[in-house]
Amino acid sequence: MRLRHKPWAKELLESHPEYIVPSPEEGKGCWNEIFSNNRPIHVEVGTGKGKFLTNMCEKYPDINFIGIEKYESVLVTGLQRILEKEVKPANLRFINGDAADFPAYFENNELDRIFINFTDPWPKKRHEKRRLTYKDFLDLYKAALKPGAELHMKTDNEGLFEYSLESMSEYGLKLKNISLNLHQSDWEDNVMTEYEEKFYSRGERIFRVEAVYPNDGE
Amino acid sequence: MRLRHKPWAKELLESHPEYIVPSPEEGKGCWNEIFSNNRPIHVEVGTGKGKFLTNMCEKYPDINFIGIEKYESVLVTGLQRILEKEVKPANLRFINGDAADFPAYFENNELDRIFINFTDPWPKKRHEKRRLTYKDFLDLYKAALKPGAELHMKTDNEGLFEYSLESMSEYGLKLKNISLNLHQSDWEDNVMTEYEEKFYSRGERIFRVEAVYPNDGE
Repeated sequence: MRLRHKPWAKELLESHPEYIVPSPEEGKGCWNEIFSNNRPIHVEVGTGKGKFLTNMCEKYPDINFIGIEKYESVLVTGLQRILEKEVKPANLRFINGDAADFPAYFENNELDRIFINFTDPWPKKRHEKRRLTYKDFLDLYKAALKPGAELHMKTDNEGLFEYSLESMSEYGLKLKNISLNLHQSDWEDNVMTEYEEKFYSRGERIFRVEAVYPNDGE
Repeated sequence: MRLRHKPWAKELLESHPEYIVPSPEEGKGCWNEIFSNNRPIHVEVGTGKGKFLTNMCEKYPDINFIGIEKYESVLVTGLQRILEKEVKPANLRFINGDAADFPAYFENNELDRIFINFTDPWPKKRHEKRRLTYKDFLDLYKAALKPGAELHMKTDNEGLFEYSLESMSEYGLKLKNISLNLHQSDWEDNVMTEYEEKFYSRGERIFRVEAVYPNDGE
């Protein structure tokens, strides 16, 4: 994604602690206090401009959503989108941070689902460890997720999808609801991301999978 | 595949017991005697006109290949292809039979690899049990394969491939070397089937996966 320098972004993010959690490390283990309820928590890693998550939180008001995004200049667009809404979502928060810091943000077994949508494919072999479906990331997600929880992935990148299916399978995740051409499938429950709308309008293929972590008992 | 009635097929098949094994049930547990050596045995289920297997047995002379095909009118083309060759392959046999009869043909742990190429997708949900990657077939293959052996699949059918990845994953197989567009990939070791040549020439997408059975120790 093209990053525009927005010197004002940091200040705007900091002035809205009700959406951009100021010290996300302090949320660890007490996100249900931040949301003031015990509803399930779903996290999107690399939330970008937040379109997916703002739509999800309207569609599923009984789920709490957290989006993690490391680039201030991108995340600020997500914040502006919320600020423009007449009815503000109560079930949405953002973390201006890095997926690698998952253990700092979330207690073990604190999350119910993780989404990774259209993340950087890092196509070079030497960058494998940066892909968000590399085994070290699957480890971080596992710790934060409840046993038997699911990781949902969408991408337009064929190479990343091939890699991710293999990585997830090798890790021991069970793969289900695989779609090799999402917008030709009969799945009606899709919520599109910014990227997806662009790719979809071009007629490009979108790949999707749900990967299930083992239950403790298995 | 379109089946032509060939009343002479049965007789031709029966007149070449050196390729079309007359009583494959008698081969159970003693295929290495039939091949007169102890080399690895690879089986293609639904071998069709046998092009893949006749090419494989030339490319890999140190492996024994068995093709299973239920339609005489199709298999007979594979036989004719061999009979036309100047140098006849010693490492190739065909069974005129059904994948469901796997346990009748093969002893436990007798096989080293199984191929399923461009098999009937049986797209209707009520026909799921007929798909050659349905769990009952994965069971049959497991019994016949050595621990840790592999099942290699190619297809042009997106729906069958989605289903098969899920079925294999649910079964506990590890998926590797997934290709979502085989002829755009950098894999140079491909041996094409009849169907594949047709689809490839049309520019259609070919899907491929290698699925690894668990080792006993795991």
